[in-house]
Order: sequence, then structure tokens, then C-alpha cells
Amino acid sequence: MSRVVFYTATTLDGFLADPDDSLDWLMRQEQDHQGALNYEEFIAGIGALVMGSTTYEWVRDNLERSGEAWPYELPTWVMSSRDLPAVEGADLRFARGDVRAVHAAMLEAVGGPAGKDLWVVGGGDLAGQFADAGLLDEVVVYVAPVVLGAGRPLLPRRLDLELLEATQNKAFVAARYRVLGPLAEDRPA
Amino acid sequence: MSRVVFYTATTLDGFLADPDDSLDWLMRQEQDHQGALNYEEFIAGIGALVMGSTTYEWVRDNLERSGEAWPYELPTWVMSSRDLPAVEGADLRFARGDVRAVHAAMLEAVGGPAGKDLWVVGGGDLAGQFADAGLLDEVVVYVAPVVLGAGRPLLPRRLDLELLEATQNKAFVAARYRVLGPLAEDRPA
Repeated sequence: MSRVVFYTATTLDGFLADPDDSLDWLMRQEQDHQGALNYEEFIAGIGALVMGSTTYEWVRDNLERSGEAWPYELPTWVMSSRDLPAVEGADLRFARGDVRAVHAAMLEAVGGPAGKDLWVVGGGDLAGQFADAGLLDEVVVYVAPVVLGAGRPLLPRRLDLELLEATQNKAFVAARYRVLGPLAEDRPA
Repeated sequence: MSRVVFYTATTLDGFLADPDDSLDWLMRQEQDHQGALNYEEFIAGIGALVMGSTTYEWVRDNLERSGEAWPYELPTWVMSSRDLPAVEGADLRFARGDVRAVHAAMLEAVGGPAGKDLWVVGGGDLAGQFADAGLLDEVVVYVAPVVLGAGRPLLPRRLDLELLEATQNKAFVAARYRVLGPLAEDRPA
């Protein structure tokens, strides 16, 4: 069953990036790359990616600065209402509007509902749009030992989750959640 | 060594309460009361409490509604710039201004630096004031499997923490952190 997974790092107080989109607080943390919920095992199960324009531009700017190549071999949808320059060597599909159409196209790319999982790279509002459509299955977080007090919100919605696993991975708490849907208090009686 | 500990529940996205100060999302979660970082063991090590006015009024209102008695036997400082009505049977000391003076008075109440720990009950800004003064030693969080997108912030500061332990306690991730101080990126070079 192809699941939609929001796999991300966050601060303890729920920010994906600081107000200037800096990830310096994240990059200096230690992790065990073979440990719980590690990226290598995660990405092996993924067939397609989707990211918002802010995330895309952050990755693109960082690659430009570092001179590194686009890090993903998988087809990647970029949601943006603006026309954005592409990155050489990246398998990009620009899209806008309803995430349901994007989800359908991504599913097709992985060979249908029995295919590999789909990764919502970020940001939080894009993950929220998938949740709004009832399409977000899991949230996997690496919680960095940092509070920022302000920044880009993790998942700006009211949702109930179910904790599936939680372990320490060096500096991080690594936790995996199933998305249950709207907060119980918000559901019609 | 008497430590100052901010022991609290939070959502995965770092809110202590929803925008209406509701904790309904918290009260319905399952926990193992004998499990990791449980309240009974925690409170056994505590000698005095301090809370902000919003937290105090929340507790007071809930006791009035439920008819229950004040739940803490320990001396409790309430930080408020306003005069607040007391709760019968509670050992309350109202205070305002610098948390350093309050900390000194609390230390004296527990018999000095070798005494029991001090509990910052909430809210987040009060914990932040202790951190600003270099007086916040630990943060212990029960992370509920919920995102709210808005509400009362956990700890509205930029701080580096160090993860000391993390385990699942039923619905929650229970994690304990040492407070290291201002975020590395904000410290003078």
C-alpha cells in the first residue's frame, strides 16, 4: 500500500526552520545514520517526492552555494503557483492547485496503490494540505534538542496522531506517527 | 543540588494549551502512571512550585468547576503583576518581578542548594524567564500525539538543549533534556 509520509526534522517546539529559513541549528546535531528511522532505510521505501516552493528554493539555493548535485534520483513534484527555475539533473514536475491531482500523478509514477511510498519533504502547510484531503498517512519526525520560539511551523493543522514508535537517535528523538484525522474535539458528534 | 525543572505536557508542535487554553486534547490520552518520567516519581523529588498567572487561574477555574481540592501540598509561588484570589488550603506565595528573587526564596524553602528540586509548572514564558536568568536546568516533556497549529507556546526562546532520555509512555513520547543555554548561533563568537 503506497503511503504518504511526511518525514522531517523539527525543533522540540515544532519549527522546521527558523524565521530566516536557517537550518544551522539542525546541521550541527549528531545522529546515528544507521539508527532508528534513519534516512537510508526510509528513502529505500520511497518512490516519489513532493515539496513546496519554499523547500524547493531552499534546497536549490543550498546546492548552488555548495556546488553539489540534486540529491534525489526519484521523480519530484514541486508545488508552486509561481514559475520556478529548474535544477539540472533533477527529475522535476511543477504543479499547482489541489494536492489530490498531484497525489494521483505520484501514485501513477510508483505503479499504483501497491507501489512505493510517497514522501512529503515539506513544508508544513503542504503536509497540512495532504492531511486536509485525508491523504497524509504518517508523520516521521527527528526532533532536534533545540527550541526556537518562532519559525516555519511543523504542521499547522489540528490533527490527532497515534504514536507508533519512539526512540533516541543520538541528539534526536526519532518518532513515527499514524495520522488519525481531525482532532477529536473538532469532529462532528 | 536543587535543580529547576520545567515538567510539562506539550503537543508535537510545541503548544501547552490550545488558543482557548483547553487541555481536552491532553486529558483523553493514555499514559502509564508508573512508566517513564511519571509524575509520582517526579513530584517526590520536588520541594517547591512556581507557576504563572495564566496557569494558576486555569488550575483554580478547573478546581472550582470540579469541586476538587488544591492538588499540591508544596509551597507554590504564583508570578503575577495582578492581585489574584487565593485558593483555600493552598500554600501560596504571590510574587512579581525578577525570577531570581523568587528562585532564591524557593531555594530557601527547600533548605538551600542541597535541597529538593523546584518545579516550573508553566507557562512557557515563565520557563523562558528562568532560562533567561540561567536558572533553568531541565525540561521534561510529555509529548501528546496531537498537533494544534496554534496555542500557548512551550518555551518561546532560542535555546540549546541536550537530550538525556527519551521513551514511549503509551500515547506519549516522554523526554528529558538538560538546558545548555542560548542557541549556539546566538552566542558571541
